Amino acid sequence: MNWIVNENGFDPQRIAMNGNKFMIGNGALGVRGTLEEFGKEELTATIIAGLYDKVGNQWREPVNAPNGLMTKLHWNGTALSVLEAKSGKVELPQHEQLLDIRHAVHRRKSVFSTTDGAQVTVSSERWCSAARPQLIVQRFTLQSSLDGELVINTGIDGEVWDINGPHLERLVSDVNPETDSNRTTDILTLTGWTHELNVPVTTAAALEGSGLPEGYEEQVELQREGHSISRTIRLNISAETPYTWVKYVSVAAGATGDRQVEPSSAQAAVSSICEAQQLGYDRLYQEHAEQWERKWSASDIVIEGDEEAQLALRYSMYQLHIIAPDRSEKVSIPARGLSGQVYKGAVFWDTEMFMLPFFLYTRPEVARNLMMYRVHTLDGARRKAAEYGFEGAFYAWESQETGDDACTLFNVNDVFTGRPMRTFFRDKQVHISADVACGIWQYYVFTGDESILLDGGAEVVWECAKFFYSYAYYNPFKQRYEILDVTGPDEYHERVGNNAFTNRMVKETLRIAIDVMELLHKQDSSKYDRLLTGSSIQPEHIWEMHDGLYVPQPDPASGIIEQFDRYHTLEDVALPELKARMLNPHEYLGGGNGLATTTQILKQADVVLMLHLYKDEYAPAIKQANWEFYEPRTEHGSSLSSCIYALVAADIGSPDWAYPYFLKTATIDLTGESKQYVGDLYIGGTHPAANGGAWMAAVLGFAGLRYDGVKASLKPALPSAWHAVEFPVRLREGGYRVRVGREDILICAEADNTGDARFVIGEQELVVAPGRQVSLSI
Amino acid sequence: MNWIVNENGFDPQRIAMNGNKFMIGNGALGVRGTLEEFGKEELTATIIAGLYDKVGNQWREPVNAPNGLMTKLHWNGTALSVLEAKSGKVELPQHEQLLDIRHAVHRRKSVFSTTDGAQVTVSSERWCSAARPQLIVQRFTLQSSLDGELVINTGIDGEVWDINGPHLERLVSDVNPETDSNRTTDILTLTGWTHELNVPVTTAAALEGSGLPEGYEEQVELQREGHSISRTIRLNISAETPYTWVKYVSVAAGATGDRQVEPSSAQAAVSSICEAQQLGYDRLYQEHAEQWERKWSASDIVIEGDEEAQLALRYSMYQLHIIAPDRSEKVSIPARGLSGQVYKGAVFWDTEMFMLPFFLYTRPEVARNLMMYRVHTLDGARRKAAEYGFEGAFYAWESQETGDDACTLFNVNDVFTGRPMRTFFRDKQVHISADVACGIWQYYVFTGDESILLDGGAEVVWECAKFFYSYAYYNPFKQRYEILDVTGPDEYHERVGNNAFTNRMVKETLRIAIDVMELLHKQDSSKYDRLLTGSSIQPEHIWEMHDGLYVPQPDPASGIIEQFDRYHTLEDVALPELKARMLNPHEYLGGGNGLATTTQILKQADVVLMLHLYKDEYAPAIKQANWEFYEPRTEHGSSLSSCIYALVAADIGSPDWAYPYFLKTATIDLTGESKQYVGDLYIGGTHPAANGGAWMAAVLGFAGLRYDGVKASLKPALPSAWHAVEFPVRLREGGYRVRVGREDILICAEADNTGDARFVIGEQELVVAPGRQVSLSI
Repeated sequence: MNWIVNENGFDPQRIAMNGNKFMIGNGALGVRGTLEEFGKEELTATIIAGLYDKVGNQWREPVNAPNGLMTKLHWNGTALSVLEAKSGKVELPQHEQLLDIRHAVHRRKSVFSTTDGAQVTVSSERWCSAARPQLIVQRFTLQSSLDGELVINTGIDGEVWDINGPHLERLVSDVNPETDSNRTTDILTLTGWTHELNVPVTTAAALEGSGLPEGYEEQVELQREGHSISRTIRLNISAETPYTWVKYVSVAAGATGDRQVEPSSAQAAVSSICEAQQLGYDRLYQEHAEQWERKWSASDIVIEGDEEAQLALRYSMYQLHIIAPDRSEKVSIPARGLSGQVYKGAVFWDTEMFMLPFFLYTRPEVARNLMMYRVHTLDGARRKAAEYGFEGAFYAWESQETGDDACTLFNVNDVFTGRPMRTFFRDKQVHISADVACGIWQYYVFTGDESILLDGGAEVVWECAKFFYSYAYYNPFKQRYEILDVTGPDEYHERVGNNAFTNRMVKETLRIAIDVMELLHKQDSSKYDRLLTGSSIQPEHIWEMHDGLYVPQPDPASGIIEQFDRYHTLEDVALPELKARMLNPHEYLGGGNGLATTTQILKQADVVLMLHLYKDEYAPAIKQANWEFYEPRTEHGSSLSSCIYALVAADIGSPDWAYPYFLKTATIDLTGESKQYVGDLYIGGTHPAANGGAWMAAVLGFAGLRYDGVKASLKPALPSAWHAVEFPVRLREGGYRVRVGREDILICAEADNTGDARFVIGEQELVVAPGRQVSLSI
Repeated sequence: MNWIVNENGFDPQRIAMNGNKFMIGNGALGVRGTLEEFGKEELTATIIAGLYDKVGNQWREPVNAPNGLMTKLHWNGTALSVLEAKSGKVELPQHEQLLDIRHAVHRRKSVFSTTDGAQVTVSSERWCSAARPQLIVQRFTLQSSLDGELVINTGIDGEVWDINGPHLERLVSDVNPETDSNRTTDILTLTGWTHELNVPVTTAAALEGSGLPEGYEEQVELQREGHSISRTIRLNISAETPYTWVKYVSVAAGATGDRQVEPSSAQAAVSSICEAQQLGYDRLYQEHAEQWERKWSASDIVIEGDEEAQLALRYSMYQLHIIAPDRSEKVSIPARGLSGQVYKGAVFWDTEMFMLPFFLYTRPEVARNLMMYRVHTLDGARRKAAEYGFEGAFYAWESQETGDDACTLFNVNDVFTGRPMRTFFRDKQVHISADVACGIWQYYVFTGDESILLDGGAEVVWECAKFFYSYAYYNPFKQRYEILDVTGPDEYHERVGNNAFTNRMVKETLRIAIDVMELLHKQDSSKYDRLLTGSSIQPEHIWEMHDGLYVPQPDPASGIIEQFDRYHTLEDVALPELKARMLNPHEYLGGGNGLATTTQILKQADVVLMLHLYKDEYAPAIKQANWEFYEPRTEHGSSLSSCIYALVAADIGSPDWAYPYFLKTATIDLTGESKQYVGDLYIGGTHPAANGGAWMAAVLGFAGLRYDGVKASLKPALPSAWHAVEFPVRLREGGYRVRVGREDILICAEADNTGDARFVIGEQELVVAPGRQVSLSI
């Protein structure tokens, strides 16, 4: 069964990479796949979703909680640490790190050979409870070939990886070692307060030593040093006997400005531990595993005939599930998930464009949370529009909890001078407001859930349309509206005019705005009136701009759609030649003086992304011509690029063109093969957009699934190796399981569906009633 | 009398600088102030106005003709060369280089002490005939303290300074030394053909040895080596006897593609020499000097009380006179005059904005030529507009003989990577079309000479207005026309929106276009019809844009006019702090990653230039507020900057603020203190725009002279040191001499003036009849 991701042996070069690859999480917490003996140098992190902090003038970024998993073992005075295996003090004949993605459990097993001839086997597992947002459970088993002394040091390490931190001030514990030296069964806590908003963050930890020798409690010594608090347990253990202990770790954040001696975060963390202690390991695991079975039941895809793709695709979905905000509509998914503080833990267009479809088709309640996050951050987008002198809502390129833009004007350093480089991500990627508006509309069309519009979604869409109206210009000579001075998805070309993707997205936003306002007029006319009162921008202006807006069209001769005004005048250099010009491997190819800036080389799909989104509007020959034109000019410098080329290749019936792009996307976090630096900026971590892109390529691409709220359609184009692909999908009428084979298609409806669903395949239309199974030869 | 510029002693570090400082010229030829023994390493140059060539993919630049002044002397085997004085072979107890700017004569006098104890005094003078465009005359005198052997090697050196050359191929001579070894009185020629257009260029030279010992002809040996042809004369000369010889040099260019064995250029050059030989030195000098007396009579300014300013200002006018195209309306004045090939020998906005006023007020026939050059290059401007997808005429940022833009998209190299840097001088400095249109209008208003409009000027203006209409955008939200994505005079901020200077100039152009078209409608209705037929841009569009065009206005509180949209959001750093950030002394402060780009530091006057041009529209307090705001933010990195600050300071009644800026401008080519490199690009040479700016500061600034075609006005604001300033001016009615003293103003009209002129001084108006003199106490 293809549910296991593992690596054998220990390679210190892979510490950072494996920290990403072996991540666990539950949407509220993300725990990097580091080993228990690791510290901040090895990038330990327990990222709290939606909690940000700023230190001095550095970038705002997510808060990394004190590490409650920290455990250091010594056998007869020798540290049982993979890090010591390098030094020759101890050998490591066997080491495995493993992720069971079915239930999101991280495991490690290390066999240490010590100089006194003992073989000590250390196994651990851990999981972030899918049922309890604050809880992480860890279990250790140790067995030695000889009798000897085991020293366990376990507790909470306040020194953790920070890019622009440390973020927690005044780390305090409510345990005082001098008076409470033997409180072995008690719960340890470590609480710090964020710099900017004074939010308390507590990590609590409790040990359950029922698998340790009796009377071990007498051997416990409490330690409070520097930034950590821990217990040290000295035990004489017997050969060949397994010793087991469990640790409950809880991470909680309190309210802004909470400066009580016993802050709310400590109370919450301790109470979470108490509940866990009462339930015990097995019942906790059971509720956790049930949650995971539910997630997979809603989403798992079975690929017949391609084991590599199978694991990679499942792993991609795993990565999305561990970071899905299924409990809150006030957080969304950052570009690097919860794998660290890279990209400021910020939410980008990645969410709407690359992750939303996965959740929409499998877990629409998560999709709703993602889009409601944009409703809750509308004021931030309004502030940004006003800052630049525009109306409406200009959504943040890098959005955190308030929706204000975390993106700086100098977002990359010049490798040659070390100076900050002016970039225009923040100012000019106006398509973000269109991405948001279209995302909300997509959710509404898919689910029919009008409430998102009435709960603020309509206002978001309208404010985005107003923004574009105030941003746009009319060209009196050409008699058309234009969108000038923007950066499209291809960030190597900043400040361009009439980016095809942007203009098309804006046009869509204007149309949606009209539709949404009509709906609002009917359903909530007082809100409708409130949105229009006092504004010089009225629906008729939006109509006029919609009708007059220029969208670059295919050249009649070549079929090529020019990415932006005068793109064709740029140097047409081959990608290898461009790369040969690089003087520094990390130099940024975009920006004012970037090597790609003055050439036709793109960072990522741009026109081709538009052809994916608006596939109905372009003939296959146009799509093919543009794919063939732009692909060799695309660096794929972004993890968002390959999946789009896969999608469009599948759409034009060339799945074997698509396949390598699909596989590159699906394996990105398994291989770790992605750009790690831009300038001197570290950009490593997980790639949820690629994870979502892998799902899109498989389901929307190879199976060719689409749904417009009324009918679904399938247009299969399976890669050569695939015999079939089978996946669940949730439509308005309920759940369906679809199997697309090379010769037939099978659709099974769940019994409790609320009505018949229509599936269109080629010329055929299938109506699938609740509980029924329908098949069709193709 | 303040007519002499000189330097004593020889400093090899000053060779390049003195080549500029001691230039001579006659508008058709410019000869660098190098010494006769110098070669290409010392930057010898005889630049031909209006002749350009391109070698390979290098920049097009002016052609430097073979050096006909080359003369090398040996005394008893010792080279009489200042370059040898460094080597210890000969000493140079006395050396002087001198320019008599009254008659534009270059002189040098060097006393050499040789190892055999002789003192040899070498004197030479040379001048470019102001009466004969192809002719340069040189005269040598040599005297020795001892008898000895003098060897004179003199001829034509084909090896000359070239930045992107050499430009002349296949250097040929019609003299064959093997058969014609003793043709001493014959004329030597050296002809080469340009690479690009195959234009022949000939330098011819003839020796007149009447001041040499009798029978010297027998001692002449002809030499043709490599790129030169010369005569060597061996003479035994007597102590204390002066020996004199004259050389006539002529430089001529032929027609494109002229590949005859005896090309037209050779015929022209030889015939020019023959005429010179017939007239002889004295008569040639007389006609030359008469021309110069006429130039000075029309322009010389007398400053009472400030000798330094007197010489500097006179020298500035000298520089303008030697490069003034007084014989052709097909050439204009390049940004570095005729001092070399810097800036591609191209014509910039400098001409209209900084040089035109001097010629307009003193030699309107030259002003007409300058503006007719723009008429003749209209097709180049049309091609440029079409290249960028616009209508009308987009004048070249760097204009050569066709009006096509010589400016490249990569005009500066990055000092850190050595890579060409994308700059936007060519694409975005659209104000050039407005500068041209306003220049033509200014000439018309000043002179009343309608012919310039009917001969093509009206068409230029109209085409410029059409260009702006097609370039402009309408902002539907703000309900106004805007000019987006431009670079104003301050080139450190590229691609800005609504540059105040540019928008104001465009507005003026639109108004002028309406006026010009009305005039054309009356005077030449068929041409009027032809300009409008088939164009979608009609006068009513221009009116509409004129009325709706946004021009940034003074902030009501501070009075500051924002230089462009969002200028105030840029970093407000002090200039010394910015300079302290430089890592390389030549790094370009503008461009994509330049240090000034993201700050409020300007290269040169921008808003303040607008306040000068439209001084009637702004209250003194506004002008003062903007002067005080922008001056500390101005790097004055351009030689065009200081004079504008001087003009506006004088205008607001602060001549002592103005004075240092005036003096810096007026002395720029005397001190050589200006930027010599941008990136790794050499930008040294003379500064005709600053020369014109010095005149503007003195006459338009300190004397406060203005003329609108109907009446002149004076608004004096003399610097403390000046007792009075006296200058000639040519108005529609004829010539006037104006003396502005601290207590009175005196105006003398020439006797043959055609009518009464009106001069307004404060509340007073003086009417000055032909031949009358009027004074007024102030």
